[in-house]
Amino acid sequence: MRDVAVIGVGWPKWGELWKKDIRNIFVEAALMAIDDAGVDHIDSMYVASMSPGLWSKQEHIGAMMADYLGQNPIPAVRVESACASGGMAVRLGFIEVASGMSDIVLVGGVEKMWTGEDFTAILATAADQEYEAFHGLTFPALYALMARRHMHEFGTKREQLAMVSVKNHANGAKNPRAQYQREITIDAVLNSPPVADPLNLLDCSPVTDGAAALILAPVELAKKISKRPIVQIIGSGAATDSIALSDRDTYVELPAVKKAAEKAYKMAGVGPEDIDLAEVHDCFTIAEIIVTEDLGFFEKGKGGEAVEQGLTKIGGKIPINTSGGLKSKGHPVGATGVAQVIEITEQLWGVSGERQVEGAKIGLAQNMGGSGASSTVHILKRID
Amino acid sequence: MRDVAVIGVGWPKWGELWKKDIRNIFVEAALMAIDDAGVDHIDSMYVASMSPGLWSKQEHIGAMMADYLGQNPIPAVRVESACASGGMAVRLGFIEVASGMSDIVLVGGVEKMWTGEDFTAILATAADQEYEAFHGLTFPALYALMARRHMHEFGTKREQLAMVSVKNHANGAKNPRAQYQREITIDAVLNSPPVADPLNLLDCSPVTDGAAALILAPVELAKKISKRPIVQIIGSGAATDSIALSDRDTYVELPAVKKAAEKAYKMAGVGPEDIDLAEVHDCFTIAEIIVTEDLGFFEKGKGGEAVEQGLTKIGGKIPINTSGGLKSKGHPVGATGVAQVIEITEQLWGVSGERQVEGAKIGLAQNMGGSGASSTVHILKRID
Repeated sequence: MRDVAVIGVGWPKWGELWKKDIRNIFVEAALMAIDDAGVDHIDSMYVASMSPGLWSKQEHIGAMMADYLGQNPIPAVRVESACASGGMAVRLGFIEVASGMSDIVLVGGVEKMWTGEDFTAILATAADQEYEAFHGLTFPALYALMARRHMHEFGTKREQLAMVSVKNHANGAKNPRAQYQREITIDAVLNSPPVADPLNLLDCSPVTDGAAALILAPVELAKKISKRPIVQIIGSGAATDSIALSDRDTYVELPAVKKAAEKAYKMAGVGPEDIDLAEVHDCFTIAEIIVTEDLGFFEKGKGGEAVEQGLTKIGGKIPINTSGGLKSKGHPVGATGVAQVIEITEQLWGVSGERQVEGAKIGLAQNMGGSGASSTVHILKRID
Repeated sequence: MRDVAVIGVGWPKWGELWKKDIRNIFVEAALMAIDDAGVDHIDSMYVASMSPGLWSKQEHIGAMMADYLGQNPIPAVRVESACASGGMAVRLGFIEVASGMSDIVLVGGVEKMWTGEDFTAILATAADQEYEAFHGLTFPALYALMARRHMHEFGTKREQLAMVSVKNHANGAKNPRAQYQREITIDAVLNSPPVADPLNLLDCSPVTDGAAALILAPVELAKKISKRPIVQIIGSGAATDSIALSDRDTYVELPAVKKAAEKAYKMAGVGPEDIDLAEVHDCFTIAEIIVTEDLGFFEKGKGGEAVEQGLTKIGGKIPINTSGGLKSKGHPVGATGVAQVIEITEQLWGVSGERQVEGAKIGLAQNMGGSGASSTVHILKRID
């Protein structure tokens, strides 16, 4: 397998983009990425999106985006793994370049969620429709069950959940692409409207329109055409778990995250102690706590304390979600996993401005679908 | 890139499967394929499906199928390219095995279309929603436009369209997995209810529930574990075109099919004259005529005559759709491209019974999405 680098990125502002449809949103990001990479063509493209059929009555968006991007007749395909669609698309693009099938591959993700459709019902199609959604289990409810159990088993405090949100908003306030560029307080989280006990509105990632795209190429080619440090994908792991939460042995860990991480660490030849920063899937505050434990950054049950001690802030032991996370920067489902890899790439390039993690050399991006039925982990390294 | 073989196939009966939901349908095919290959594990899986969100309110079926197949925690992802989803999934599985990332990969496709939802509206999400579907252009209408133009430019006769359907039903009558295992007559086609002039009901592929799955492995491994002749994927091509028919320069050829074929032939080192049989995407009778021209089997404009002369029958110059095609065996969208590759594989194994093409050594499978905005072409060869 060939070594693969990220050579260009495109990430326009996220938010409620009422004046743009799914194709405009995607194409803007893709053009930015192509321009940023400075390439004169692409060989193949992947479009990650969870549910354009339900939100926009539009399937077949792989071909559609290649068309509107002016890239016909290149191969283009949509990839879907619910909220892990973006991470899975990065993985498939990585495999295609590594295989030698293509040299320059665009991996983009997009979701147009503000269309007037019922997004709670649409998001619930990522859960088990017959055994969960039909009976009224929404995603906030699924993660609330995990939160309650984590609090019960490990004494994780309600305030510690809130601190995840406060930290991520502090980071997002410095990210010009974020949906919510403002700081919040613990009190604001605790006093925001309840959604599914113990989770309040400000424990939940928002509903967002947005896209992100990146360009992959062999490291050998990247060295010839790139003027920035080379950022290589040194590890890619993906794993699945039961789609229904009730089929798991535990609610306080996410086996797919652990397995995906194990594979990525093995391929990369590094361990959690070597990671300088990480983007993780904080769809709800409890998710960040559980995931940082399952990635091996903290002992099981200690994720809440780690946040309280400031270990996951910029400047802390291992900065988590310097982008603002899903909570503050927004969560346009299909785009999320792609944007995570962009945040890590930019940090390793050293171009993250006020959010820069000094001396960052190895970063990790963890993306997750459903209540953890899918997870991907990518490890990136600046090779000097 | 490593050489890749098909080592097992699973294809249960297709039809209106009212007593089965999408997960039952998929798992049955996948278990058959695993059993047929005789493998004790799989490393990764792809699930092709166009629109489980709209038909069954269920996205995230990559992880769900891995779960119900008892295969967690292996990576699993859904692939969507409208009606070319199956062909694209075969391609991605091929790339993954070729890359060295995985050894044994399951590629399955599934569609559960009989759920009570409006399938004409759902299928129209494979067209351009804003510029085609919204204005009332259904798929029969799009292909009817192509048919009228082909008749106008080349003198293709209405009866020749009907002959495609008659031939495919004759083949499907011998395929125990086909939805409609019965022969029909030209008169029956001509007198069936009009759908979109000149296409009648019996020019259109039906609405079908079904799944198909196959197992890919490196040729080197296949030689060790397989008791059948080795069938290798020697060429894989994919291409895209404008999603809206009105954006094309021509209605009488499908540029994405030509491009995908060109790439597949080049990779395989063979030409149309070397192909012993082909499965092509006859979603409508006119599609088979245009596609057999674009694959290089017949001169442009001569596809209708070729059918009339019996060149595409079993025993003819190049048998087309020995399986019965989409027309007779059914078209469960996501499964179609996978089943095409299964039909070719079985023919090359020499196990197709009454449908067997004697001495078949090289076969081709062509899958298509929308009105030709996506196409894949795979070329398979029995290597003795």
